Amino acid sequence: MVLNGPNINFLGIREKEVYGSQNYEEMCQYIKRNIKKEIELEIYQSNIEGELINLIQKAYFDKFDGIVINPGAYTHTSIALYDAIKSVSIPTIEVHISNVHARESFRHVSMISAACKGVILGFGLDSYRLALE
Amino acid sequence: MVLNGPNINFLGIREKEVYGSQNYEEMCQYIKRNIKKEIELEIYQSNIEGELINLIQKAYFDKFDGIVINPGAYTHTSIALYDAIKSVSIPTIEVHISNVHARESFRHVSMISAACKGVILGFGLDSYRLALE
Amino acid sequence: MVLNGPNINFLGIREKEVYGSQNYEEMCQYIKRNIKKEIELEIYQSNIEGELINLIQKAYFDKFDGIVINPGAYTHTSIALYDAIKSVSIPTIEVHISNVHARESFRHVSMISAACKGVILGFGLDSYRLALE
Amino acid sequence: MVLNGPNINFLGIREKEVYGSQNYEEMCQYIKRNIKKEIELEIYQSNIEGELINLIQKAYFDKFDGIVINPGAYTHTSIALYDAIKSVSIPTIEVHISNVHARESFRHVSMISAACKGVILGFGLDSYRLALE
Amino acid sequence: MVLNGPNINFLGIREKEVYGSQNYEEMCQYIKRNIKKEIELEIYQSNIEGELINLIQKAYFDKFDGIVINPGAYTHTSIALYDAIKSVSIPTIEVHISNVHARESFRHVSMISAACKGVILGFGLDSYRLALE
Amino acid sequence: MVLNGPNINFLGIREKEVYGSQNYEEMCQYIKRNIKKEIELEIYQSNIEGELINLIQKAYFDKFDGIVINPGAYTHTSIALYDAIKSVSIPTIEVHISNVHARESFRHVSMISAACKGVILGFGLDSYRLALE
Amino acid sequence: MVLNGPNINFLGIREKEVYGSQNYEEMCQYIKRNIKKEIELEIYQSNIEGELINLIQKAYFDKFDGIVINPGAYTHTSIALYDAIKSVSIPTIEVHISNVHARESFRHVSMISAACKGVILGFGLDSYRLALE
Amino acid sequence: MVLNGPNINFLGIREKEVYGSQNYEEMCQYIKRNIKKEIELEIYQSNIEGELINLIQKAYFDKFDGIVINPGAYTHTSIALYDAIKSVSIPTIEVHISNVHARESFRHVSMISAACKGVILGFGLDSYRLALE
Amino acid sequence: MVLNGPNINFLGIREKEVYGSQNYEEMCQYIKRNIKKEIELEIYQSNIEGELINLIQKAYFDKFDGIVINPGAYTHTSIALYDAIKSVSIPTIEVHISNVHARESFRHVSMISAACKGVILGFGLDSYRLALE
Amino acid sequence: MVLNGPNINFLGIREKEVYGSQNYEEMCQYIKRNIKKEIELEIYQSNIEGELINLIQKAYFDKFDGIVINPGAYTHTSIALYDAIKSVSIPTIEVHISNVHARESFRHVSMISAACKGVILGFGLDSYRLALE
Amino acid sequence: MVLNGPNINFLGIREKEVYGSQNYEEMCQYIKRNIKKEIELEIYQSNIEGELINLIQKAYFDKFDGIVINPGAYTHTSIALYDAIKSVSIPTIEVHISNVHARESFRHVSMISAACKGVILGFGLDSYRLALE
Amino acid sequence: MVLNGPNINFLGIREKEVYGSQNYEEMCQYIKRNIKKEIELEIYQSNIEGELINLIQKAYFDKFDGIVINPGAYTHTSIALYDAIKSVSIPTIEVHISNVHARESFRHVSMISAACKGVILGFGLDSYRLALE
Repeated sequence: MVLNGPNINFLGIREKEVYGSQNYEEMCQYIKRNIKKEIELEIYQSNIEGELINLIQKAYFDKFDGIVINPGAYTHTSIALYDAIKSVSIPTIEVHISNVHARESFRHVSMISAACKGVILGFGLDSYRLALE
Repeated sequence: MVLNGPNINFLGIREKEVYGSQNYEEMCQYIKRNIKKEIELEIYQSNIEGELINLIQKAYFDKFDGIVINPGAYTHTSIALYDAIKSVSIPTIEVHISNVHARESFRHVSMISAACKGVILGFGLDSYRLALE
Repeated sequence: MVLNGPNINFLGIREKEVYGSQNYEEMCQYIKRNIKKEIELEIYQSNIEGELINLIQKAYFDKFDGIVINPGAYTHTSIALYDAIKSVSIPTIEVHISNVHARESFRHVSMISAACKGVILGFGLDSYRLALE
Repeated sequence: MVLNGPNINFLGIREKEVYGSQNYEEMCQYIKRNIKKEIELEIYQSNIEGELINLIQKAYFDKFDGIVINPGAYTHTSIALYDAIKSVSIPTIEVHISNVHARESFRHVSMISAACKGVILGFGLDSYRLALE
Repeated sequence: MVLNGPNINFLGIREKEVYGSQNYEEMCQYIKRNIKKEIELEIYQSNIEGELINLIQKAYFDKFDGIVINPGAYTHTSIALYDAIKSVSIPTIEVHISNVHARESFRHVSMISAACKGVILGFGLDSYRLALE
Repeated sequence: MVLNGPNINFLGIREKEVYGSQNYEEMCQYIKRNIKKEIELEIYQSNIEGELINLIQKAYFDKFDGIVINPGAYTHTSIALYDAIKSVSIPTIEVHISNVHARESFRHVSMISAACKGVILGFGLDSYRLALE
Repeated sequence: MVLNGPNINFLGIREKEVYGSQNYEEMCQYIKRNIKKEIELEIYQSNIEGELINLIQKAYFDKFDGIVINPGAYTHTSIALYDAIKSVSIPTIEVHISNVHARESFRHVSMISAACKGVILGFGLDSYRLALE
Repeated sequence: MVLNGPNINFLGIREKEVYGSQNYEEMCQYIKRNIKKEIELEIYQSNIEGELINLIQKAYFDKFDGIVINPGAYTHTSIALYDAIKSVSIPTIEVHISNVHARESFRHVSMISAACKGVILGFGLDSYRLALE
Repeated sequence: MVLNGPNINFLGIREKEVYGSQNYEEMCQYIKRNIKKEIELEIYQSNIEGELINLIQKAYFDKFDGIVINPGAYTHTSIALYDAIKSVSIPTIEVHISNVHARESFRHVSMISAACKGVILGFGLDSYRLALE
Repeated sequence: MVLNGPNINFLGIREKEVYGSQNYEEMCQYIKRNIKKEIELEIYQSNIEGELINLIQKAYFDKFDGIVINPGAYTHTSIALYDAIKSVSIPTIEVHISNVHARESFRHVSMISAACKGVILGFGLDSYRLALE
Repeated sequence: MVLNGPNINFLGIREKEVYGSQNYEEMCQYIKRNIKKEIELEIYQSNIEGELINLIQKAYFDKFDGIVINPGAYTHTSIALYDAIKSVSIPTIEVHISNVHARESFRHVSMISAACKGVILGFGLDSYRLALE
Repeated sequence: MVLNGPNINFLGIREKEVYGSQNYEEMCQYIKRNIKKEIELEIYQSNIEGELINLIQKAYFDKFDGIVINPGAYTHTSIALYDAIKSVSIPTIEVHISNVHARESFRHVSMISAACKGVILGFGLDSYRLALE
């Protein structure tokens, strides 16, 4: 399962110099094209913190093998997502399209990373591909 | 009204050494069985911060006598829940199943307690029973 | 578009000494009555952080000329709303009915102001009127 | 064993709007009257941090089944009481008559809670009754 | 009374990309032209913190109905101006030409806002017009 | 020399519940009436930080035996006044009419006290009398 | 009642360059000699925080008109003394022999001052005399 | 003089994995057995901060040559003990049985060390032996 | 160029539960075996901060196409490495074998990430492979 | 233009061990004697923050080529001076007679340096000479 | 193995009032003379953080029984040394010649102590002797 | 002796907009050409913190009259360099090519300045020339 948090669906609209000009639909296509054939993939996006938790819980009930999550701005504040990832104990990887450490200082802290297996950031859409691998 | 916040519905799945192995359905039964007969009780759960506010506002419109809230991880960050509890002026009691003070340091702060009449934490499911009393 | 955040719909119920006794419906009427005829106005309210983001994105797709947002308690914590406002690049004005600087210290910080064109606070319902102007 | 810390014996004298007008003697009677018959109870009060430790150690030697402690102002600073509670490993419950979270900010931190099984605060004298239960 | 703090008289000279290229004289004319006829207006500027206090006290003795103050850099540090505004109890509105929240972090704190009725910032010279209204 | 800082001349106007209703002229009379005959006294007031420094330097050149200073709000921020007092090495006593420790937290810090011989605060106008003694 | 906190009885032994070489007995004599005849005075000293609280409570039961307290090092940390002074509502004055603001930075904060009517510090033994006046 | 602070007498009871299973009596014997014959030794223990100060003052009056102090939890908060050690000017060595730096972060700060000649920690009971040497 | 910082050469010796039991030699082999044939790779390790800078400068002079750096503990403190990476403007990727966010809090801050193109952490030796890709 | 801030005119009076015993007049002479003939120099001193701003603005109107400013204690707090220097865009050099980094910690921060071209400190009166060069 | 960090070799040159006038060579002799005959000792000194790590790793390969380390100024900042000590799991004791707690505040924190078995400080050269014992 | 810290040898390569395009060799020539004939000068550069200490110690043994040090990034963190400069007691001047106060906030703090006689920053290569003078 690939989970995208708030404003990720505005890719290609939002701050193009940071995120590139590809739009969200193209990104989903790009991710699906670039993974191994045998991986079954579902991609979701929500702007609502609690719905991301619902989706993580859905991953548990639907027995997904792994979660790739780009939690967007909720990365920096959400203890609830941290708890959700911990509670399902599915291997989870946090990804970011841009390098958050090179941006505003309030983006340097991640509440969620500690619950994840690993973190990949700064590789554009390839962040997703590397995580799925 | 008993309100449960994010991930409480994963009781029995999530971190069993902290929360015990009883699942959420059993917990609801347990609470209902252990209160005085004459108390009418409704139990809700939501992972979404704003829906918890909706439910607090519903408690106001439906003229509930009291609210028992386990705000889960939103305890530590939600000024909006603090405002919601203040705005309805229904006696509200904050409960936690585990002793948050004995866990990670980011769980030691509660934004919501100041809006509540009282706080009960650390007694497992009995936290609810004591609060309802 | 006028966007109201959590608990704003409890105007007239919540802390009357701070917000006055006019209720939310009356407030919407008041705002509509007091703007220039030629402005077409839609007013929304949601307690859910992510739905406010949805509405900001809707403003983008529906080509609104401007947004007036009273983000309520999410002002103080929401990086996601900050991102949403930045991503749509519609001129946005933050308003508050009361003077947040004269209240609790956790209300002195605004995460969202930096993404807005301007800020107006402390003028009761006239905060909205001034912003729409 | 019920242990009361500094200034608790000034109940009914001190800040009546916070603590009510019942005096300390009446409080002790109230607690004793409202517990189950089969519980044997001893109530102590001391203004001296170290004597509270002595009493906790006495609870160990006299094989008490549990401790209910209202540590008063020492709650916020005493690592020594924290150590004492940890060292005797008797189930201990921290109680407060008022909701400390709704008071001055230096009362929001508790050094002692982490050593206790649970915490109950804000229910007036009933805080003790709930704890003893 | 319109009060302008340090460096406001360098409008049109100072950081044009932030403040526009209109000079101080033109700004005063602009403000006077754009208010309702019946308002009598006096505009002062001083670089000296204490003289701004003198002018606030003058507003008290001359029985002004209101003060619009752009305290410039003293916004961020002056407790003395805060006291002065509080002591005269004339409705006072704080204005800024630019959005201080979008600038250096030492400009995000305002010592003075809490003493004012309201705050308006980010609307260029129209900040004054809205405040006078 | 008795030196009064910003807003002290608004005594009797400003926050009467804190400072009493006696006005500044009456205060000066009161101080002069209540000191020993043989003390020659000059009382100054200025709202300008730098003029207070000028006056401290004047005390040096005019060979005053001591300074009693009520630095008002500059107490909390002025390193320049601290330097001025240190540089003249005249015994200086800091006074405050009210108890600053019982007021807003930004009034708890004093930059100036460390340069003074002693501090007296909370005794109303008698703070001056005790200092002159 | 004059209350002296920890180590005050080591006057004349401890850090003579700060406190002078007069010993504690001489200090008590000095204080008694230098007050008005009609004042009845009792002087106590204790190194134990809780006994200072006991003495403050004794002052309440013995109907003392006022308390002069030199809380020594407990000034900087004791919330319990703060509570005790508040609870008895006897006018209390905090004194220090030396100017604590000119010493180590951990001595700059006073937990107790906010509960007192006034504070006098830096005048050696005359701090007591001024307070008793 | 060997001085032991709060809870040290619960050695062998308290957190055995940290402090070993030897009890306090055995520890005292161990210390006495392992020092040079010619050293006369008195060992005291108190849970009360102020009594530890009394004992330090006693060491002064009884002309002890040195003090070995294990201040337990008071290490981290007691300015009063710091003052006491400074005031007697007897060479004092602070010891801890365990390595406080490898424990909870609130144990990393020592208020008292700066007043001591040296510090020894982490060597179990041998901490005392090394200090006496 | 693959650069390894302090203690990385103790892989298989140091904290096996965190880093696995493979030793440093095996790790180098593993990395070399798992990259695309056409990549020419040099692997260096140094415990000395300045030598890592020397190696980064060597990468510049030898015209390497990219740097993969595991800066070990220098991640958290080294502004000099940050400067070095910035100065050579070779695309650099920071990797860590373990998830630093799930470890001690002093490991959560990275001084170096902001100078890198991307960051990969938590994937064991595969962190290197993903980075080289 | 050479600008001297508060208390600089007390050179030779104030803390001689730090600033030397030369008085202010001599210092002005010294500076004038030690610069190149062709430089026309005006030296000003004021204790008033706002007058220093006035003088910086005067430097703008009188088309000075450069400013050497010793802002004294205002260095550490004045955002208004920072703004003033930025607004005139004349090359400005900050000087200090003593090395502020070797003094009290509240002197280590400079609000003004960031607006200046360069900073010179610690060379006594030669700080000025080097700056003028 | 005895390891000495930066500037320790300047003993007898550097700050004699703190470290005594014995030089580094004499210190090495003193240490060797004062240990039990059967202990084989090697003493190293380096100013380079990474070489100290190299030496700790050498201790591992050469199967030393213990390390006594005086890390000098690296005590306060080096996470890399902390990791090195942890990785070799040889019992390590941290020593300092002077009492760092009685010096500048930036010397009060030790990054390294938590990785060591024990800490000894303040006993001059005897710190080493006690540690070797 | 002129000492250059990490990355200074990348002058002309690194961030040209900050440091200019002159390379390190040219800089050394420039410095040598621009000093008085009679000064004998040695210039060193190292990326290794400890080697800079070695060179400072060499300056002591070779009896240099002064040190001009550009510590690069070690300025902000190195207590060891601070100690080294203090220990040799050779007059030392800290220089920086750019104005560190106008750059990232982690560059505003200098650990080393307090050990130096003076500081010069922001004058490009002339910073060195002024220092040598």
